[in-house]
Formats: sequence, C-alpha cells, structure tokens
Amino acid sequence: MGKVFLNVMDPDEVKKIIESLQIQRKIENVPLSDVYQRLLAEDIYASIDLPPFDRSAMDGYAVCAQDTFGASEDDPVSLDLIEKVGAGNVPLKKVGEGRCTEVGTGAPMPEGADAVVMVEFTDSHDDRILISEAVAPGANMAACGSDMKKGELLLSKGTLLTPEKIGVLSAIGISTAPVFVKPTVAVISTGNELIKPDQELQYGKLYDINSETISNAVKSCGCIPLYSEIVKDDYDSIKSKINEFKHADVIITSGGTSAGAGDVLRRVVDDMGRVLVHGISVKPGKPTLIGTLPDENVDIILFGLPGYPISALMIFESFVAPFLREMSGVSGYVNKKESFVVKLAHRYHSARGRSHLVLVKIKGDVASPILKDSGAITAFAEADAYFEVPKNVEIIEKDEEIEVIPLSGLF
Amino acid sequence: MGKVFLNVMDPDEVKKIIESLQIQRKIENVPLSDVYQRLLAEDIYASIDLPPFDRSAMDGYAVCAQDTFGASEDDPVSLDLIEKVGAGNVPLKKVGEGRCTEVGTGAPMPEGADAVVMVEFTDSHDDRILISEAVAPGANMAACGSDMKKGELLLSKGTLLTPEKIGVLSAIGISTAPVFVKPTVAVISTGNELIKPDQELQYGKLYDINSETISNAVKSCGCIPLYSEIVKDDYDSIKSKINEFKHADVIITSGGTSAGAGDVLRRVVDDMGRVLVHGISVKPGKPTLIGTLPDENVDIILFGLPGYPISALMIFESFVAPFLREMSGVSGYVNKKESFVVKLAHRYHSARGRSHLVLVKIKGDVASPILKDSGAITAFAEADAYFEVPKNVEIIEKDEEIEVIPLSGLF
Repeated sequence: MGKVFLNVMDPDEVKKIIESLQIQRKIENVPLSDVYQRLLAEDIYASIDLPPFDRSAMDGYAVCAQDTFGASEDDPVSLDLIEKVGAGNVPLKKVGEGRCTEVGTGAPMPEGADAVVMVEFTDSHDDRILISEAVAPGANMAACGSDMKKGELLLSKGTLLTPEKIGVLSAIGISTAPVFVKPTVAVISTGNELIKPDQELQYGKLYDINSETISNAVKSCGCIPLYSEIVKDDYDSIKSKINEFKHADVIITSGGTSAGAGDVLRRVVDDMGRVLVHGISVKPGKPTLIGTLPDENVDIILFGLPGYPISALMIFESFVAPFLREMSGVSGYVNKKESFVVKLAHRYHSARGRSHLVLVKIKGDVASPILKDSGAITAFAEADAYFEVPKNVEIIEKDEEIEVIPLSGLF
Repeated sequence: MGKVFLNVMDPDEVKKIIESLQIQRKIENVPLSDVYQRLLAEDIYASIDLPPFDRSAMDGYAVCAQDTFGASEDDPVSLDLIEKVGAGNVPLKKVGEGRCTEVGTGAPMPEGADAVVMVEFTDSHDDRILISEAVAPGANMAACGSDMKKGELLLSKGTLLTPEKIGVLSAIGISTAPVFVKPTVAVISTGNELIKPDQELQYGKLYDINSETISNAVKSCGCIPLYSEIVKDDYDSIKSKINEFKHADVIITSGGTSAGAGDVLRRVVDDMGRVLVHGISVKPGKPTLIGTLPDENVDIILFGLPGYPISALMIFESFVAPFLREMSGVSGYVNKKESFVVKLAHRYHSARGRSHLVLVKIKGDVASPILKDSGAITAFAEADAYFEVPKNVEIIEKDEEIEVIPLSGLF
C-alpha cells in the first residue's frame, strides 16, 4: 500500500477555505402548492391593489356616514333599504341621502356609501332600517389599496416560504413563484466490504450506512441528494463514478480517504482537479479531503468523508452542512435556532492537540456524551446533538455549560 | 338572512374538547429513501449482530497479543507476515504464535489473532514485520456483537426518523421502515367572492388565500393537505363538497361560519353530523366551528375556520395545529422548541372578556405587535410569530416579557 502523508490543517483554517468556495444559485418557477420551505429568488411586488375595491369589513348596512350622525339606541335613524349585496356580487344602485344597502362581509361598497353600520346596531322593518349607532366615514370598511398598493414591495428575495408568506403570494393571484433551485449533491459510499440493504450478509461484509445518513442530512440542508451505487475502493471505480456525477453541484464520498488505506480518492482528485484540504486536526474525521473538479461555470465541490459512519456524519455536520445551507440559501433560517446551552452530565476528558466532536444525548438541560468508538452505529440511536471541544481544552468538568448543536433534521 | 346565535365557549374549554377527539393512527411501510422526518410506527430490534464478525478497527497487523508483550521501539518484536486482508475480504490463514496478518480497517480478524497493532507502530521488511508496541487482547478491533446484539431494541416506536436514525435502520440491512401514515386533511375555501390564482380579477372578487396558507400549515404539522376547488357559500355546494372529501381524516373549511352571514356551514354540519363547538371567546376567530361527521371507524373531524385569512391562520395555529401534530405524531418533536420569551416593543391594549391572538414581528429579543385588521394580508408579510393575551388581561406594558410561538413552518 502506497502511503500518502496528510497535511493536517486546523479546523478554522479549513472552514475559511470552505467559505471561500464559489457558489452559483440558479432560479426556477415552482407552483405555489410546492414552494413550502423554499426560498424566494426575487423580490415580489404587488401587482394589484389590496383590497382591489372598497369593501365592507362587516355584515351590516352601507350608508352615508353623515346620515347616522346623532343616531342612538333611544333615537335611531331610519333609512330606506335599496339593495342587498353579498360578497362576490356587484352593487347596482347608488346610496344617496336617507338610503342604505345591506352588505355582507367582503361585499363591494355601493357608490355613494362611505361607511358600514354593523348589523348588531340595526333593526330591520321590511324596507326600513333603523340605525342606532353613529359611524364616522370609513367605519367598518376597507378602502381600495388600504392593505397594499400596486407596486409596493411585498416579499424580499431570500424570504423563506412559510404558510403565511405563501398566502401573501396567493393574495396577488400568482400561481407560481421564483425560488432558488435546490443544489444537487451526489452521495457515494466507497468500500469493498459494503453491501446494499436486502442483500444477503456474507462473512466480512457490512450494510452500507453512510448513503442514508448523508443523503438525509443533505435533505435537511435544503439540497437534493442523488443516490449512487456502492463503489469499490479502487482508482478506476471511484474515478468513473465521480465522472458519472459531474452534473451534480457537489459530490460527497465516504471511505477511501485514510492515508494508510491506499488513499485512492486523493489520487483521483489530484488527477481530475485540485485537492484543497487533506487532513483536518479534528477527532473523529482526521483524513477528510476537500477538492474541486473543474466544470463549465463553477467548479464542482468534492468532499471526501471518512468511512466510519460517525466520523462521516460529524464531519458532514461540522464542515459540509454549513456550506450546503449557504448554497441552498436556508442558512439564515436554520442557524437561528441552531445551538443551545446545556450542562455536561459528567467530566469529559479530551486529547490535546486536536479538537473533538462529541455526540451527546440531551435530557432536559443536561447532555451526556456518548462514549463509543466511531465505528459504533448504536451511538446514532441515542444521539440528539453534538458539541465541539477546542484543541487546547483537555478537561470539561461535570455541570460545566456547553453549547450543543442539534443534529440535522430535528424540527 | 337567518341568524344563528353563537354559544361562545372559553378557549380552554374548546381545547379540552379538541384533546378528547378520537384519533386513529395507521401504519405503512416506506422505502428508507423516503422516511426522512417520518415517525417510526413500531419498535425496531436488531436482526443481526453488529459488527457481524470480529473486525479490525485500524489499518495494521492482526496478532496474538501475547507475542507483542514487552515490545518497544528500542526492542521490537519480529513476526512473520502470512497474509494480507482488506476490508470485504475473507482471511484464509490462521495466525499462530510468531505470525501476523496485514489487515485494513474493517477487515475480518483472522482466526487465532486477538488484537491489532496499528501500522504506525510497525516497520515492514519484506515478510518480516517489526512490532514496536505491546497491545492487550482486544486492542484496535471490534468484537462481533460489541456494538449491538441480535434481538436488542434499536429504535422505539414514535422515533422521529432523522438522518442518523435512518442510518441505524440501514445498519441492519432493511430497505423499508414501518411509519405512521400521514393524516389527510381536506382544505376547502368557501366564498362567492373568491377566485383561484391566474383567473382574471373581476370587480368584487378576491384571490383565495386560505387554501395556500392552511394547506401549507397542514404540511408543517406532518399531514397531507388535499386541495379543493373553491366552494360557493350555499348549503348544497358546501354539503356536496364535504361529502366529496369523506375519505379524508380531517376537513378544514374557511368562511361561511359567521352567525350573521347566514351560517350555512352550521346547518350542514348539524344535518350531517354533530356540532361540538360554535363560537370561541377569542379575537380574531370568534365564529369558529368544530364538529364531527360519522364514518366507518373513527369520526371525521371538521374544523370551520373564519374566512379572513389572519383569523383563519390564527385559529389554525392555536387550536387546529396542536391536534394535527398529535394525530400525525410529530407533536413531541415540534413542541420541544416551540415557544420562546421576548420583550414587547410597545404597550399593547386588549379588550377584556376575550383572549386575543396577536401576530408579531421578532427582531432580536423584541416583538412588535402587527396592528392591522384581520383582513389585511400584508400582516402576513411581516409576521414571524404570535402571542396570546389571556381574557382577563387588558394591558401589557412595553418591555414586559411575553411568550411567543413561531408560526408553523419555520425551520
């Protein structure tokens, strides 16, 4: 086995390199029924006034406000009822002095009327309506354009399309919205020992885990995972699989990155593009590789994660996820609630010289580190979050406050 | 217009009625690639040992630990290399005294070997390997079943399937998982004035907003919205549309509930099933209706929301969403992070006798109430969250702390 020695970099240095990677955001028009939790790619301006006409805000009677002045329960004013207009109908008669029109909530205001008296303050006797409350002009109605005027900025580029924001888009009658295209991320597991689900488990083989953990973590970052077959850990297989996914924006591999393991991926990326990082001073995940592959407009970004499932997910969460969220545009929203402070359940001892990423189980405001080796998949069954121990810290005491980051995909 | 008087109930009383509604959860098997953020419907037990065989945890040499005792850099032990085994391969030769096998990370341990010496502590001279570190039995290897034993409980019923939990399912080689079926929720907007997007906006008409806000809020509760055409506000149209959606678990209408507006929905539900609530002492949203329609196993639940978009969404968030989350099973996860405490930006004055639901815009740790009438859709453009003013509170002072609840669908 040829040995390649890692040029181990500091996590902060690696994060700076990742932040400097070039991103290209594309735009697509998507039907409103499918834009939930997508990000608006353009500013949206009102194309109509809202409401688009003077409308009644209550069930009642449209009047000339002046006619009601002085009206009270003891001394009601009597008006002639000339028409009944429900929501969605069009008033045909003009409301003159001494007259009124019955209006439903949402009905257009008849010409001449400038206020609505709520039905609760009236009494009807055939075509005579007794008004027992004085109203000011504009009462109980919404004037055309009072909510928003045609041409006003409604929603800004980058807005996360939550239910009420989608409602705002409906209000101006559009059926599709311009949103950022979700970046595509190929997820490739490498390893001669790996098999797919439902295959018979022969001696020496293991079911592939990283395809699912990484693909679903990719979804949680607002990107679309592209599933791949499992790839054998040799130069030609890896190179040809990467070539197959050159239409993706990002390629994530796992396995085949350790210097001692023959370092196949390193050689492939050296030949196809450029290795930016190979080796991070972090545990687990030291042999991580980051590279770029030249493409027409923007380079394809390649992340080579370690093969152990826990190492792979920890490196994904800490280094790859922030980049993918930036790329898809969800970063502002996801980060808002991301980390929180809890107490450590018991003393944690870390090795100096490398920062540590530690899975924890949260119960109330206490975090218990999950102390299993990075090959132990059951750690995932218990884990809720993780925290980072900086490289110069050796011991964190019981009850000390730590900042934990929930694993991707928690609501 | 015939008038039906509301029998207005207290919000807490209404919430108790909603909590007592019967729920039926169904189960379906879904491919792992589609189970993200679904809820496990059964306990999952390990069907295999993990790892399924003794495996090397490092690149190095499989040895009889005893052979290495006393080895050091100054005084290495020399062993005969008898075989090379990579991950996924099967060792053929037994490691006896004085011998070793080269193993890759993940390779099965050869018979006779009980520890691995990491490659870093060795030196190779053709078929002689110099070992410069003593290892204890079990070092740098994972024994069959050490991570989990066949038959152990892996994940409990009700677990939210986040990336790492899906990884746990992959580890035992299953390709589908039993999850709770997402409840279906028909969303029906009623109103003669409403039109669908892209239709020409004629005088007196408005684009329908509630279909999109409510449908997307339904998604945020882990349910599937069933879109409907807009329904005219008359008895026959509403009744026939409700009949059309009797395959749904829940039916949500908006509009047509106000006592003054003819109260069509009330009569329909009275005739088809049972009205449980008609009128809640809350602003906005007083005319809300809740009923049940008899069905084969469990009654269909019907929520009749007010027509104004803000009233409809406020009632949805406060009364309907908790029920839907309970029904879909996501409640435990969604509620975890739901409310938070901020300061009120300025004095808020509320009318006594009814609790108020107030939309707010959050900036840092300050919430500004959005003081627009419930017909104003632009309030949605600004809103992030809402808070509830109890009915016996009239004034909340500037800078007082309030508990706000983010609107559905924020990450």
